[in-house]
Amino acid sequence: MIKVGIIGAGRIGKVHATSISTQIGNAKVKTIADPFMNEELEDWAKGVGIEHAIKDYQEILADPEIDAVLICSPTDTHSSISVEAIKAGKHIFCEKPIDLSVAKIKEVVQALEESKVKLKYQVGFNRRFDHNFEAVREAVAEGKIGEPHIIKVTSRDPAPPPAEYVKSSGGMFLDMTIHDFDMVCFLAGCGVEEVYAKAAVLVDPEIGKAGDVDTAIVTMKMENGALAVIDNSREAVYGYDQRAEVFGSKGMVASSNDTASSAVISTTEGVTGEKPLYFFLERYMDSFTKEVKCFIEAIENDTEPPLGVLDGLKPVVIGLAAMKSVAENRPVKISEIEV
Amino acid sequence: MIKVGIIGAGRIGKVHATSISTQIGNAKVKTIADPFMNEELEDWAKGVGIEHAIKDYQEILADPEIDAVLICSPTDTHSSISVEAIKAGKHIFCEKPIDLSVAKIKEVVQALEESKVKLKYQVGFNRRFDHNFEAVREAVAEGKIGEPHIIKVTSRDPAPPPAEYVKSSGGMFLDMTIHDFDMVCFLAGCGVEEVYAKAAVLVDPEIGKAGDVDTAIVTMKMENGALAVIDNSREAVYGYDQRAEVFGSKGMVASSNDTASSAVISTTEGVTGEKPLYFFLERYMDSFTKEVKCFIEAIENDTEPPLGVLDGLKPVVIGLAAMKSVAENRPVKISEIEV
Amino acid sequence: MIKVGIIGAGRIGKVHATSISTQIGNAKVKTIADPFMNEELEDWAKGVGIEHAIKDYQEILADPEIDAVLICSPTDTHSSISVEAIKAGKHIFCEKPIDLSVAKIKEVVQALEESKVKLKYQVGFNRRFDHNFEAVREAVAEGKIGEPHIIKVTSRDPAPPPAEYVKSSGGMFLDMTIHDFDMVCFLAGCGVEEVYAKAAVLVDPEIGKAGDVDTAIVTMKMENGALAVIDNSREAVYGYDQRAEVFGSKGMVASSNDTASSAVISTTEGVTGEKPLYFFLERYMDSFTKEVKCFIEAIENDTEPPLGVLDGLKPVVIGLAAMKSVAENRPVKISEIEV
Amino acid sequence: MIKVGIIGAGRIGKVHATSISTQIGNAKVKTIADPFMNEELEDWAKGVGIEHAIKDYQEILADPEIDAVLICSPTDTHSSISVEAIKAGKHIFCEKPIDLSVAKIKEVVQALEESKVKLKYQVGFNRRFDHNFEAVREAVAEGKIGEPHIIKVTSRDPAPPPAEYVKSSGGMFLDMTIHDFDMVCFLAGCGVEEVYAKAAVLVDPEIGKAGDVDTAIVTMKMENGALAVIDNSREAVYGYDQRAEVFGSKGMVASSNDTASSAVISTTEGVTGEKPLYFFLERYMDSFTKEVKCFIEAIENDTEPPLGVLDGLKPVVIGLAAMKSVAENRPVKISEIEV
Repeated sequence: MIKVGIIGAGRIGKVHATSISTQIGNAKVKTIADPFMNEELEDWAKGVGIEHAIKDYQEILADPEIDAVLICSPTDTHSSISVEAIKAGKHIFCEKPIDLSVAKIKEVVQALEESKVKLKYQVGFNRRFDHNFEAVREAVAEGKIGEPHIIKVTSRDPAPPPAEYVKSSGGMFLDMTIHDFDMVCFLAGCGVEEVYAKAAVLVDPEIGKAGDVDTAIVTMKMENGALAVIDNSREAVYGYDQRAEVFGSKGMVASSNDTASSAVISTTEGVTGEKPLYFFLERYMDSFTKEVKCFIEAIENDTEPPLGVLDGLKPVVIGLAAMKSVAENRPVKISEIEV
Repeated sequence: MIKVGIIGAGRIGKVHATSISTQIGNAKVKTIADPFMNEELEDWAKGVGIEHAIKDYQEILADPEIDAVLICSPTDTHSSISVEAIKAGKHIFCEKPIDLSVAKIKEVVQALEESKVKLKYQVGFNRRFDHNFEAVREAVAEGKIGEPHIIKVTSRDPAPPPAEYVKSSGGMFLDMTIHDFDMVCFLAGCGVEEVYAKAAVLVDPEIGKAGDVDTAIVTMKMENGALAVIDNSREAVYGYDQRAEVFGSKGMVASSNDTASSAVISTTEGVTGEKPLYFFLERYMDSFTKEVKCFIEAIENDTEPPLGVLDGLKPVVIGLAAMKSVAENRPVKISEIEV
Repeated sequence: MIKVGIIGAGRIGKVHATSISTQIGNAKVKTIADPFMNEELEDWAKGVGIEHAIKDYQEILADPEIDAVLICSPTDTHSSISVEAIKAGKHIFCEKPIDLSVAKIKEVVQALEESKVKLKYQVGFNRRFDHNFEAVREAVAEGKIGEPHIIKVTSRDPAPPPAEYVKSSGGMFLDMTIHDFDMVCFLAGCGVEEVYAKAAVLVDPEIGKAGDVDTAIVTMKMENGALAVIDNSREAVYGYDQRAEVFGSKGMVASSNDTASSAVISTTEGVTGEKPLYFFLERYMDSFTKEVKCFIEAIENDTEPPLGVLDGLKPVVIGLAAMKSVAENRPVKISEIEV
Repeated sequence: MIKVGIIGAGRIGKVHATSISTQIGNAKVKTIADPFMNEELEDWAKGVGIEHAIKDYQEILADPEIDAVLICSPTDTHSSISVEAIKAGKHIFCEKPIDLSVAKIKEVVQALEESKVKLKYQVGFNRRFDHNFEAVREAVAEGKIGEPHIIKVTSRDPAPPPAEYVKSSGGMFLDMTIHDFDMVCFLAGCGVEEVYAKAAVLVDPEIGKAGDVDTAIVTMKMENGALAVIDNSREAVYGYDQRAEVFGSKGMVASSNDTASSAVISTTEGVTGEKPLYFFLERYMDSFTKEVKCFIEAIENDTEPPLGVLDGLKPVVIGLAAMKSVAENRPVKISEIEV
């Protein structure tokens, strides 16, 4: 039985706590820490079977019984807590992104390298564990479509974030597209060499005033020679649009959206099926459980987690390259960023 | 917090125990009873947080702390345990069918009527809680397709049962089609008036030797005047085929099968998607949880469960009518059975 | 170049005339005859390149240059004109049904047998030439789904005929379902042994007053042991619903409706595709051309047309059996009709 | 009755001749000219009802009875024949592209402007008349998806052309993508402002040796502010892949591929539908007829053809910009080309 501490009891911290309690047999959350811990949160914690609900995550790091931590705190604390946890000898599951700064992520890389104990470090790019994307990747990995030539990812949110949020988010490429950058690497089985991003403010002028964009098409040349393209929008009024397609020398594999049911109604108006599941909690709930299950198994079996710290670095670098590409309206090589 | 006892620790008993433990917050399994209780089962019970794993279900009925029982024992014990549990003042969730004999089910009906306490009694026709069938029913209930004229249910198992099983199963109509009879009533919002069943042995001659059939088309006239048809096979090699369609004066609503993913592969061979989910544990897992959640809520809120004892009676009667129809090769009125 | 005469310049006569003129290279319509021939029809005939537009079809039969006739006159003249044309030594393409009376069709069978010249006789069950049904049949014939166990045909008209028409139509089974009876035989590759039809008046009470039905489910036992089922409605408000499914020991093949385009619109209301093509002229236009092309080729290559006079007899017999089944509410053997 | 002359009796010339003869009532091909006219071609012409099959197209231009010409000769003759035909006072339907040189197309523009008679000039971008793309455009034009934000076109040929052909084709962007450039303008309802094209040789190294590319992703900024992206491959082994999607403020409209039938086969291997129709003659045959019908109607009703000479110019300019973009690996403004 792996004992786990969760740092951060916000939305995603709760999701992980619940899935460990209810669906992951070989792990147990001993402690959850959040600076805003209060009675309500304590009650919730008790309800999902967590004994200790505290304010200071240092207690988790200091607890010799705890094998692993899930870092679910705000993004700007991920890297420093990662480094502390590494020093405390804990295995780490860190929510994405590790940081928006390459230098900060590299500190984590270094801390891992210097650690005397070999620690597991997994980053929370949960979409790799989504049933649809897993099936697409599997078809590619098994060679069913031959050599990949074109990788396409459509990723559109159902509703734009408030302009206030946008200001502190690092921008669409680091906040939203970052998942798609990871997806492109996952599906292609390699990293990106060059990026060209074309962006626009078409959804909400307030987003533009906040210095960000809300619509984009990002073209990438992959390290294996394939071409890739992501299209993003902050607002698909019909729901969360999450699709992927890989085209290659022997065929194509594509996934479509999930719906709440397969019911289709035919009337004088047309033949109508359901909209895609609304947003990430609906669409990706299973993948949140699967990624943590996978992390626990990596600890138990002493294997490498499928998504290490370097996989956490890549999408950030691509995102920074995309931002530079928009700013300078030219293709940007990954090597320009990754000094 | 509703305290529950589970009678029978076979496959479905375990499914319910697990979903109460992990997904139903306001209920707790206090005791599970099975005459074949052994160390392995006890360990499993402990693992899902059940304190008492015992052999004799009478202890459950005698336990004043226990509010409700789930009857997951063999079919031929359902009705007698139901009656005992009613006398013990327990709310009851009983796996389908309540019994294969109308008289036995009527004993349960009578026991409920005679009970001084108003008890909840729900029957385990889980498919009513399946997301696809729920959506079809909802469209019908909301009048989106107008008055129902034709109801169609396709229900095909992925592989035939052993001939040995067939002998003791009550026959395909009471073992397999019984779910579809319930579905037809659910979708139409009423009962059946007349049945004509045409059956054949096309899958496995051993099934025929055991006195049963493996393929059937059953036509029904519904009480509301609509026509309904079920087609069954014991072996769909491509997987568990579970579809419904309701056609009416203003349109049609239809559901298709669920798959493990939406991935579609296009090659020189064609454009290929996944097969339906293999069998009922894969396809209907969520519905098992939802039906029990619904039962617990009915107790908590003191409302009627959506599927009472009379709903449990109907499909058995239809099944018996269908058997008579096959035997005599003529349409049989429900009134011929329900003496 | 095969020279053709068309008897009857109604809707279907015109369809055939046009497709021979524009799409069938090796045939030419020399003459078209219609008792209601008038100036407008003559102009139309000239427009599609037909030299002779006359009133009396006897001129066609007497014309030694004409190799073949298409009988597109009212149903009750099909059999007598067939017999006359056989005596005149013409190959015959006869619109369905040959007649509503078995005895009349048998006169045609006999005339063909007695003819000294071996004549081609094809019946206009055009749906066998529809691209979708052809593909379903091909999959069955190639053994892709193994032995057929269950054959399903859904056939629903977009709008009911006037009650006036219904009176003279022979009833729904001989007017509309007759195509589906042929389809079931085509897909199964054999005839029907027994029929049970359950029917209702749910669309229009006037149809009931006219002595007919508008909704039906017809179950058949096929000669090869498979079971078959047709569901019919006179009014599918979403358009012409024409689907087939064959289920067998190795799988299933199914066809869906055709639409004017593949465009799908996703909005806040749902994900909406187009309705099925409205009615038979839209859906089956290509099949009208293909059936005549096939007839011309049979003459040219001296091969058997795929749909002979006996294939024209079968659906009528099944239809009569279905009518008897409804009248007596019992399964009716085909042998009861075919005295 | 509009009298037409066809210049060029190659594949597309024959397609137009046949569709005018068989499906366009109000037009007639009087003469077809081809420098390689021979007995076989003459026989074919007679077969489709064309009286004059000649070598020198000048006879067509000189024939006062001929109202309109279809220019189906090799690309490098389109513009000069256009100018000659304009001077001869003929309405013109010119196959795409008018020329690969902007200057040459501008000569046609000028000739039209200088013509005393107002002549119709239509360019053969037939895909605008495809039922699927028409439906997508219609949804956009009717405002069903609101303001367009993202336009996506997938266009992949089933098999690469011989390297020999590639050399003289003007390159993939002017030979193949040119249709997609037109499609993007058609769907967006406006022209392109800036292009970034990323291309690769992934299908056939011989194409690379011939100085061309076979795989590309082209991003465009449209004049109305929307973003657009085309993905191309010279070889989709599963068939001709021709899809479009327009995403906007109120929803999305998307079209998928056409297939020969809707039959879907479910077996132990999966659920398999048909591949897309093989290539442009299969997929776009109806659109070839519709574009010419539309041209004839424009003459008859004296209206503007939907696709004038300036619409023929745009895709060439975009193609040249795309080529420059690949050569210099940077976004290229349309204004850089259109000097």
